[in-house]
Amino acid sequence: MAFSPAMMGYDRALTVFSPDGRLYQVQYAFEAVKQGWSTVGIKTPGGVVLAAEKAVTKSLMDVVSIEKVSMIDTHIGVTFAGFGGDGRVLIEYARQIAVSHRLTYGEPIPIEYLTKQVSDLKQAYTQHGGVRPFGVSLLIGGIDSSGPQLFKTDPAGQYFGYFATSMGRGEAQIEEKLEKNYRKDMSLEEGILLALKVLKESSDQDLKAQNFDVGIILAEKKEFRKLTLPEIEDYLKKI
Amino acid sequence: MAFSPAMMGYDRALTVFSPDGRLYQVQYAFEAVKQGWSTVGIKTPGGVVLAAEKAVTKSLMDVVSIEKVSMIDTHIGVTFAGFGGDGRVLIEYARQIAVSHRLTYGEPIPIEYLTKQVSDLKQAYTQHGGVRPFGVSLLIGGIDSSGPQLFKTDPAGQYFGYFATSMGRGEAQIEEKLEKNYRKDMSLEEGILLALKVLKESSDQDLKAQNFDVGIILAEKKEFRKLTLPEIEDYLKKI
Amino acid sequence: MAFSPAMMGYDRALTVFSPDGRLYQVQYAFEAVKQGWSTVGIKTPGGVVLAAEKAVTKSLMDVVSIEKVSMIDTHIGVTFAGFGGDGRVLIEYARQIAVSHRLTYGEPIPIEYLTKQVSDLKQAYTQHGGVRPFGVSLLIGGIDSSGPQLFKTDPAGQYFGYFATSMGRGEAQIEEKLEKNYRKDMSLEEGILLALKVLKESSDQDLKAQNFDVGIILAEKKEFRKLTLPEIEDYLKKI
Amino acid sequence: MAFSPAMMGYDRALTVFSPDGRLYQVQYAFEAVKQGWSTVGIKTPGGVVLAAEKAVTKSLMDVVSIEKVSMIDTHIGVTFAGFGGDGRVLIEYARQIAVSHRLTYGEPIPIEYLTKQVSDLKQAYTQHGGVRPFGVSLLIGGIDSSGPQLFKTDPAGQYFGYFATSMGRGEAQIEEKLEKNYRKDMSLEEGILLALKVLKESSDQDLKAQNFDVGIILAEKKEFRKLTLPEIEDYLKKI
Amino acid sequence: MAFSPAMMGYDRALTVFSPDGRLYQVQYAFEAVKQGWSTVGIKTPGGVVLAAEKAVTKSLMDVVSIEKVSMIDTHIGVTFAGFGGDGRVLIEYARQIAVSHRLTYGEPIPIEYLTKQVSDLKQAYTQHGGVRPFGVSLLIGGIDSSGPQLFKTDPAGQYFGYFATSMGRGEAQIEEKLEKNYRKDMSLEEGILLALKVLKESSDQDLKAQNFDVGIILAEKKEFRKLTLPEIEDYLKKI
Amino acid sequence: MAFSPAMMGYDRALTVFSPDGRLYQVQYAFEAVKQGWSTVGIKTPGGVVLAAEKAVTKSLMDVVSIEKVSMIDTHIGVTFAGFGGDGRVLIEYARQIAVSHRLTYGEPIPIEYLTKQVSDLKQAYTQHGGVRPFGVSLLIGGIDSSGPQLFKTDPAGQYFGYFATSMGRGEAQIEEKLEKNYRKDMSLEEGILLALKVLKESSDQDLKAQNFDVGIILAEKKEFRKLTLPEIEDYLKKI
Amino acid sequence: MAFSPAMMGYDRALTVFSPDGRLYQVQYAFEAVKQGWSTVGIKTPGGVVLAAEKAVTKSLMDVVSIEKVSMIDTHIGVTFAGFGGDGRVLIEYARQIAVSHRLTYGEPIPIEYLTKQVSDLKQAYTQHGGVRPFGVSLLIGGIDSSGPQLFKTDPAGQYFGYFATSMGRGEAQIEEKLEKNYRKDMSLEEGILLALKVLKESSDQDLKAQNFDVGIILAEKKEFRKLTLPEIEDYLKKI
Repeated sequence: MAFSPAMMGYDRALTVFSPDGRLYQVQYAFEAVKQGWSTVGIKTPGGVVLAAEKAVTKSLMDVVSIEKVSMIDTHIGVTFAGFGGDGRVLIEYARQIAVSHRLTYGEPIPIEYLTKQVSDLKQAYTQHGGVRPFGVSLLIGGIDSSGPQLFKTDPAGQYFGYFATSMGRGEAQIEEKLEKNYRKDMSLEEGILLALKVLKESSDQDLKAQNFDVGIILAEKKEFRKLTLPEIEDYLKKI
Repeated sequence: MAFSPAMMGYDRALTVFSPDGRLYQVQYAFEAVKQGWSTVGIKTPGGVVLAAEKAVTKSLMDVVSIEKVSMIDTHIGVTFAGFGGDGRVLIEYARQIAVSHRLTYGEPIPIEYLTKQVSDLKQAYTQHGGVRPFGVSLLIGGIDSSGPQLFKTDPAGQYFGYFATSMGRGEAQIEEKLEKNYRKDMSLEEGILLALKVLKESSDQDLKAQNFDVGIILAEKKEFRKLTLPEIEDYLKKI
Repeated sequence: MAFSPAMMGYDRALTVFSPDGRLYQVQYAFEAVKQGWSTVGIKTPGGVVLAAEKAVTKSLMDVVSIEKVSMIDTHIGVTFAGFGGDGRVLIEYARQIAVSHRLTYGEPIPIEYLTKQVSDLKQAYTQHGGVRPFGVSLLIGGIDSSGPQLFKTDPAGQYFGYFATSMGRGEAQIEEKLEKNYRKDMSLEEGILLALKVLKESSDQDLKAQNFDVGIILAEKKEFRKLTLPEIEDYLKKI
Repeated sequence: MAFSPAMMGYDRALTVFSPDGRLYQVQYAFEAVKQGWSTVGIKTPGGVVLAAEKAVTKSLMDVVSIEKVSMIDTHIGVTFAGFGGDGRVLIEYARQIAVSHRLTYGEPIPIEYLTKQVSDLKQAYTQHGGVRPFGVSLLIGGIDSSGPQLFKTDPAGQYFGYFATSMGRGEAQIEEKLEKNYRKDMSLEEGILLALKVLKESSDQDLKAQNFDVGIILAEKKEFRKLTLPEIEDYLKKI
Repeated sequence: MAFSPAMMGYDRALTVFSPDGRLYQVQYAFEAVKQGWSTVGIKTPGGVVLAAEKAVTKSLMDVVSIEKVSMIDTHIGVTFAGFGGDGRVLIEYARQIAVSHRLTYGEPIPIEYLTKQVSDLKQAYTQHGGVRPFGVSLLIGGIDSSGPQLFKTDPAGQYFGYFATSMGRGEAQIEEKLEKNYRKDMSLEEGILLALKVLKESSDQDLKAQNFDVGIILAEKKEFRKLTLPEIEDYLKKI
Repeated sequence: MAFSPAMMGYDRALTVFSPDGRLYQVQYAFEAVKQGWSTVGIKTPGGVVLAAEKAVTKSLMDVVSIEKVSMIDTHIGVTFAGFGGDGRVLIEYARQIAVSHRLTYGEPIPIEYLTKQVSDLKQAYTQHGGVRPFGVSLLIGGIDSSGPQLFKTDPAGQYFGYFATSMGRGEAQIEEKLEKNYRKDMSLEEGILLALKVLKESSDQDLKAQNFDVGIILAEKKEFRKLTLPEIEDYLKKI
Repeated sequence: MAFSPAMMGYDRALTVFSPDGRLYQVQYAFEAVKQGWSTVGIKTPGGVVLAAEKAVTKSLMDVVSIEKVSMIDTHIGVTFAGFGGDGRVLIEYARQIAVSHRLTYGEPIPIEYLTKQVSDLKQAYTQHGGVRPFGVSLLIGGIDSSGPQLFKTDPAGQYFGYFATSMGRGEAQIEEKLEKNYRKDMSLEEGILLALKVLKESSDQDLKAQNFDVGIILAEKKEFRKLTLPEIEDYLKKI
């Protein structure tokens, strides 16, 4: 049996550096993200699309009750890939940050500022003892005074802005499709269609309307809302 | 002797990630759940059924005194699989959450909200040092303003809604039977019969009425109650 | 030399899960219980019997001064198997719970409620860092508004009700005898005789009256009292 | 080289269970006791004798200044075997318990109650992290309302009453002699002679009066006092 | 398989010394810096240049939104190499230090004093348990009463002043070029051109204007500002 | 290569017991004492002598400035062997204890009581986690109401009274000489001469007056004072 | 491959003793000191000289900005060898001690008293868990009421007075030269020349004026000041 350096103990204690300057526990948390259900985020002038598959394998699971795309504030939505429990905790944290910002400053929180706050929490969980990093990446989308915004924050506490991106097990395949088909001037509707298309094509299941969770934030209204099942069905027909 | 990666130390310290992005301590806690007595939850328009076997092997154990299905609030019941002590602690925690909600808001707690609170505690026990994850899964059923609800929460702190599901050593076999026999429009009575039937058939013991613990929450009355021994006997005769 | 999984480190750190979902430190604590002196608890309509052997090997030990059956409250008694120091600490804890209940509610504590409190403490010692589990099982017997009660609580923090049961090194042998000879309608006197008989027969010593510690809680009086040496001698003659 | 289970790590961390239900750190603390200087305690109707050898090997050590038998309260004495520093700390603790009891209740502390308090401290040091068990056993003797009392408390936090007993490197040999020569009705004087005799015979040194430390608690006066050098010399002549 | 000393455990626990007097965890943190995107700092009489590449590989990443050169106070800028999350945390910390200094003393913070404060935090993370060192180096540039200043602070908490320096994966190559081409009397414009030139030449990508982040602090105005995309494009044409 | 039990890990964690009932960390601390410079303490009816060599190997070290014998209170002196830093900390601690005693009781602290306090601190550092034992032994000498006193306290927190004793690398050789030459009725002057003689003879250096540090506490005056260089020279001539 | 005892784990945990009574972590911290830039301290009747090389290898490093000799109080200077970050923290600590002494007592702090305070902090970092020892030695020089003083304090928390001494990579070679050339009656000017000479001769670089940092504390003025570059150049010409 071969012993990789990772097996020699660098990853045993709390989050520490390996000789090549990596944080193994954080690397492994990225693996958890890669095993999550596929998700997509697309930014268009008309608004932001956040979409996720709900690749349920048990027929008696109440797939409709599963929420993969959630509202953080009226102008911000989020989807995640990785550990569900970790995702839920971070979303709750983001909501508190957003509410607190409204109360303190009397205005909606800027999307990047919210993303930074969530990322700071994640970073702290990679540097201090007695905790493990969060095993989850988030796609945070919304509309603020600078227009449509889309950020991805990873287990290391880093974040970047994107025009379109993906997380979860279909990430590689989906990003390839996005690079081919995404246009910065596409309409929100086209964005929704693209999101559903790449999710459907990259999945190893035959996804129905109920297997998708889609949230959009309209640039004009600055309002997050979830697509209804009939709406998703309509879009699926158009693909 | 072969050394599995699990033996190399990833599971020795507090809950940490393995190279493939899993939390071993959490995986092992799932094993504890799989060794628990079988339990079933079934959601029908008329209400929710929670049923569990009490597969006692010692003849002098006072099987009647063992509670596997418990009330959390008047409109919510729970059953568990895994470590009994852990289950008891979580049920007590759920009761406090429910009582506190009634006192604060003057109304019964929504089932999913309660489930989320319990799951958040479980998640915290997978991320912070100095504790081990809870070795128990819970089935939480009840009636709230959205009608009958049935949720399963696992050691990782994740939860999902179900129409019908199972936990414990008979889980695989029971879920197969449920998939074949469950209908969304079945009556509560049919649900009770199905629950007892799958438990009885999947058990390696000859279960009598006293070896079952059954709680139902009627959709109309929104009230949890336990079936009496004679009631269970009547149902068993009907199987 | 063979290396069992138990030797690979799962049991080295604080109480953690092994790959098969067990808590080794808790399993080992059960071993401590199995090496304790034999104890018996028997529930009859007329009351509860708690009896233990005092298998002293040193002739100059003051065997009479050794207490293996103790009063918790006027209506509750207890006996233990395992580490004496751990047992003493838990009994003291139970006494405080019982006293506090009397002060708060003005009435004697229900037996199961007391058992639950003690078991909760035990559970906590299996889940949190910086402590080891309690190496002791308790038999708690008493009379409350529901009549005679007999519970056994183990190092994992689980508890069950029993009609008759045993703990300690003679457990297997004694339980076999109890299953053959126990009747739910036996008199308290018959219960005492059965308890002494199974203890005597399962011991590898020639137990005299002074080598027994026996406490009874009469159903009618709801009062715990210890049998005197002459009383035990009388019972021994009747065997 | 052979690896005993004890070498596999069970004893490395803080006090934990081994697979056979033992607490290795506590077992090893018992070894420290076995290497201590020999001590004897004897209970007679006329009072209690506590005696210890002071087997000094350095001729310039001021053997007279070494105290192995100490007063805890006017009616209680103590001797120890094992780590001197640990013994001193426990004796100081016992004194505080005794003084506090006098202040609170206006009467001398019962011997067993004091022993229990000291043993509880010892037990706590076997169950909680960040400390090691006490490497010392104590013989606590005294007179209270129940007459002469003699208790031995060990590193595990257990204690038992004795008529006569020994601790330290001569324990096995001395207890054998005590079993042969002790009589429950012997006079205090006979008890003193027996104590000195067994200490002297079991020692590998030629013990002089100054190599003994002897304390007695007279049943009538309920008073602890140390024997003077001339007194010890007189007794030694009588052997 | 060869075992390097680094594998023997020196780097497993919290930051400790190795036999040759190094702190491995700190050494490894330096490796993280070496893998960061290349950055350059150049000090001229006319002001300080801080420049960094943004070597984005994903075409849909919003490269313009990525900030590698940031303002700390109106007279100070910073760039980093290493872990982005760590960098962000330190920059935030530096901003608080600078603001607090303005509030307390009513004047802009001296550059070296700010650098020292940030370095002290880094040092503390190499000496105390329960944390890992920061995996990031910072280039801090600015103008204070002593004129243009440029400091580099590393993961060990050390800092030095520089005329021109580099960090990140191109460091060796870039420093060589700087040594050849830097003149202490070069104009700020020449400094900007040199910075862009060495970054462009050392990169394995074909860097466009959008792949650079450049901040300058003018000596006269004592003001930090970022170059605009058109400005960078102009400079790139001049190379 | 042979592996001694000490290498198997018993000494790796905080101070724990080995299978044979020893505390390895404490044993190793004794080794530190054995490598210290030689010291001597001698008790005579006329007072106590504390003497130490200062075996400096570097010619430019300011040997006169090195203090090996120090005052604790006007009637108490101390010398140490082992880690200088640890010794300094304990001496400071002893001074505080002595001052506090004077303030509280209005009288000089008894020598043994002071020794006990210092030894209690040492014991605590052998039993609690997060610290290492003190690597130093102290010789505490002084005059109190019981006359001249001389105590040695070791890393385990034990202490004993002595007529004459030694610590440090010459201990074995010096104690042999002391046993041959010490007389309980020797004058203080004879004591000083003996102390210097045994130190000089056991040293592998050619000790001059400046290589000795000598303190005496006169029985009559109850006052500690250091011998001056000329005084030491005079004594050296008399040897 | 050979395994040295140091590799067996003694140095893995927090600072613990090895079987031969050493503290490995402290030994390794001494190694860090040995790798530092060379430093020299010389005490003359006219004052104290503290000098250090600044052996910068990067031509664009601003060598003039590097401070190796610093003022602690107007009458005290310091230089260090080892980890720069650690040195800076200790110097800051020393400054606070000195300021606090002035405020409390209205007079300059004695040099040895200051050295003791700094050394006590260092000692504490070798005895308590959760921290590593300081990887730095300090040379503290100054003038107080006893005249010129020069002390060296090491990572173990020990300190000694010196007439002349060295630290860092040239230590052995420099001390040999000092022993040959130092005279207690040399003038301060001769001391400065000697310091620069031994630093220059022991360095593997061709040191210029800018590669030296020199501080002097004049005995008469009791004032610390740094030599200017021209002053150093003048001295270098005189060598």
